[in-house]
Amino acid sequence: SITLMGGVDAFAGALKNSGDPQHVTVLGSGGMTTSWFGVKGSEDLGSGLRAEFFVTSFFQTDTGVYGRFAGDNLFSRDANVALVGGFGRLQLGRASAPGFLPNILFNPFGDSFTFSPLVLHSYVPTGRFGARTWASTNAADSGWSNQVVYTTPSYNGLRASLHFQAGEKAGDDDRNNIAITAMYDNGPLALSAFVHRIRDSNPNPGGPILDVTQAPVNYALVDEQRAWFVGASYNFNVVKLYGTFQRTINDAAGIEGLRDRTISAGVAIPAGRGAVLFDVADTRRSGQLFGIERSRRTATLGYDYRLSKRTDLYAVAMGDRISELPTAMSYGLGIRHSF
Amino acid sequence: SITLMGGVDAFAGALKNSGDPQHVTVLGSGGMTTSWFGVKGSEDLGSGLRAEFFVTSFFQTDTGVYGRFAGDNLFSRDANVALVGGFGRLQLGRASAPGFLPNILFNPFGDSFTFSPLVLHSYVPTGRFGARTWASTNAADSGWSNQVVYTTPSYNGLRASLHFQAGEKAGDDDRNNIAITAMYDNGPLALSAFVHRIRDSNPNPGGPILDVTQAPVNYALVDEQRAWFVGASYNFNVVKLYGTFQRTINDAAGIEGLRDRTISAGVAIPAGRGAVLFDVADTRRSGQLFGIERSRRTATLGYDYRLSKRTDLYAVAMGDRISELPTAMSYGLGIRHSF
Amino acid sequence: SITLMGGVDAFAGALKNSGDPQHVTVLGSGGMTTSWFGVKGSEDLGSGLRAEFFVTSFFQTDTGVYGRFAGDNLFSRDANVALVGGFGRLQLGRASAPGFLPNILFNPFGDSFTFSPLVLHSYVPTGRFGARTWASTNAADSGWSNQVVYTTPSYNGLRASLHFQAGEKAGDDDRNNIAITAMYDNGPLALSAFVHRIRDSNPNPGGPILDVTQAPVNYALVDEQRAWFVGASYNFNVVKLYGTFQRTINDAAGIEGLRDRTISAGVAIPAGRGAVLFDVADTRRSGQLFGIERSRRTATLGYDYRLSKRTDLYAVAMGDRISELPTAMSYGLGIRHSF
Repeated sequence: SITLMGGVDAFAGALKNSGDPQHVTVLGSGGMTTSWFGVKGSEDLGSGLRAEFFVTSFFQTDTGVYGRFAGDNLFSRDANVALVGGFGRLQLGRASAPGFLPNILFNPFGDSFTFSPLVLHSYVPTGRFGARTWASTNAADSGWSNQVVYTTPSYNGLRASLHFQAGEKAGDDDRNNIAITAMYDNGPLALSAFVHRIRDSNPNPGGPILDVTQAPVNYALVDEQRAWFVGASYNFNVVKLYGTFQRTINDAAGIEGLRDRTISAGVAIPAGRGAVLFDVADTRRSGQLFGIERSRRTATLGYDYRLSKRTDLYAVAMGDRISELPTAMSYGLGIRHSF
Repeated sequence: SITLMGGVDAFAGALKNSGDPQHVTVLGSGGMTTSWFGVKGSEDLGSGLRAEFFVTSFFQTDTGVYGRFAGDNLFSRDANVALVGGFGRLQLGRASAPGFLPNILFNPFGDSFTFSPLVLHSYVPTGRFGARTWASTNAADSGWSNQVVYTTPSYNGLRASLHFQAGEKAGDDDRNNIAITAMYDNGPLALSAFVHRIRDSNPNPGGPILDVTQAPVNYALVDEQRAWFVGASYNFNVVKLYGTFQRTINDAAGIEGLRDRTISAGVAIPAGRGAVLFDVADTRRSGQLFGIERSRRTATLGYDYRLSKRTDLYAVAMGDRISELPTAMSYGLGIRHSF
Repeated sequence: SITLMGGVDAFAGALKNSGDPQHVTVLGSGGMTTSWFGVKGSEDLGSGLRAEFFVTSFFQTDTGVYGRFAGDNLFSRDANVALVGGFGRLQLGRASAPGFLPNILFNPFGDSFTFSPLVLHSYVPTGRFGARTWASTNAADSGWSNQVVYTTPSYNGLRASLHFQAGEKAGDDDRNNIAITAMYDNGPLALSAFVHRIRDSNPNPGGPILDVTQAPVNYALVDEQRAWFVGASYNFNVVKLYGTFQRTINDAAGIEGLRDRTISAGVAIPAGRGAVLFDVADTRRSGQLFGIERSRRTATLGYDYRLSKRTDLYAVAMGDRISELPTAMSYGLGIRHSF
């Protein structure tokens, strides 16, 4: 069986990150969820065995450009095939990075690459390409190419995954990425953890792993990143709480170039046919490449109103502040529809 | 519900515009309708409310290249989401330009970007990229990105739409496009009108709005276009008549650089399982950038034979003449299939 | 009726061609079949007439890049529409090259552009882009753009096709590609033959037809290729045998620049729920551009295990040797799923 599926999300708003000289008035794409579509399928192979595949693409509702940015790969969201059975799940191909699910499941704004403070700190740099104001914390993209993922069966809601990304560098089998993730989801409590060690770039290999920017901070020198992360959420029904912690070390030619510590805390309060959402993320960054320690704090308040299970309207306001720079405000009013 | 849909159109022919040094023998794409495919969907939200989306892509049947031209955005045809109710319809995202439907509905060759005289004058420049023989009349593409469209409910067949395209220029909220359109369709008579004011390019922002060509006419200097258009059609059953008029003013740094006047007249005569089609478009162009007044006249005669509601064969011959240049002839024999 | 269809194929392995300095460890795409997906449809037009279309895209399971390589056209696999009836089949648009089916049907590794010796010799150059170790034998891609294909009805399993590709060069109707193919398939015996004469490049026109490489062998000078091919297979049930022969002449400015002779022989032996596969291809190359005669021999041994009709696992080992260069070995272990 094949299923066609996706989501379309658009918003009107004004965007400004801390350090941006001016705001931009936009009719933007993906205020809450990056727009995407694609196909998935599965086949029952008998003996408890199943084949599965996903081929899915991001796109921009505002311009019709495919991918998350100009130059992205068409099926950067998913291009993979898997064998599932009593042994667990073995998947080959392009798929989400090990840190992706832990980030989007443990903050109230989910997979918003526009307004979720945690996701912004983890994956979205600010400033222009090649001249970043603030590089993202996680290296090598929110999706990994050339990836093998083995996931254990679920034991009372606990699963672990081993991720390996082949670097595909001729004669060099060491330029690869590896990670272990664990997820627990049982009743009101959910927990998550991952560790990763990254040496190759994404979505395509051979580039700088963290950012191409060379000045004022030479992020392009970073050639290895190690990180560990823990996250938790608890659903009290009248309120759901979220919290995460991540430590990230970036080496440049064997020297600790950048050191990040990110914490986030969030809350979702059911109200009417929707929910009031609030989240704050705080990152402290230091290291030889970076110079003096600086911090970035981002907080978002929103209301998500459900027209149906598949369609919602949202209104959000976000403040973003990097130490010594002024606070910048962003706003959005949008609609999200999934199919 | 989701629907997969599209159309495939290919033709064998020879193409030459007035001013082209030589003809090109082609196996071409989209003789009658630009080939495309995509998905649409809608969801009943109750209370008379409905969510809708369109994600559709143009492609070239001859080479398999996506988009209308190399470098086009993948979903340049549609990438939008809308809320529909008693209040009308509010749509966010990439969609057709305000002038698109009035142009394709009020000429007998419909949305043919290869053989419809009116569509060619409105949207398709001649000559090479960057060295145009004749720039199109309408600026900023036949689709608008970053667009909000509000459409009123229908009153006895009359609807109006307000179009706004955010320019998304940092610190400048004035570089945007706006338009109002009106459509009337009731019985044999149909009427259409639009006005637009254009200050930003498409499908991507920041470029020249009319054409990048700088010599011999510096179209790239045009920074604002204002236009108004009226169209009418009447179906006498034994014959259907079409007529349109458009006035277009292009400013370059506050001076009237180009002034176009386009009229078209067409006829469709049912014959056998198909129809004989004829259309002529005439554009007069003047203005300080352009120098002396020149005109372009294009006429097409065709026969469209219906194999079924979804599949037709067509044969067309087109003459194209720019003042002082020789008449050039184009021919095509093709098949169109929609799904 | 419209059908969504495709195939996803990924493998873990190590790849090295003869002349490569080092092996590359990969999580690769398309070990057995190049991953693809798309839509096809057909409409019954009555009177024995039918309309058909195919719009299909290759993609890379490992990175999510569309096409067979970066820069390929999105729908390079298929973008065509056809009319089918008692007269045969007339198809317009992008589709497979005349040599494609004869190559993939007459070797046991089918359409593997990674491990089939015959397909590798015919269509896949080795070495880097612009600095090939060994150029492929067939010019102008395994798909032809701007193509008209007429196929006769089947007479007791025998069909012939005429292929024409318009070169679409202004004022020059001679820069085109033509071919005739014949296929016979009746009972255990299948036969195939084609001749082609190629003067234009693919998937896009105007480039060198064979390869852009200029040194040490100036393949870019080749401006016409003529080839003839015969293939046969016989299914004895306990074993299926395959054999092909191709002679290829490449002219550069009227001089015979390259002369190839390719033979291949293969066998498929059913074993358990799968089959043991073996194939060897041998190409001898000479000519004024090339200098002294050299040869390339490639052999692959594999086992293909069927989990179902639509899903299989495969393990392959391949040796590749160009005269005077050492033998290089490649390995792959993969999964293929079609939908």
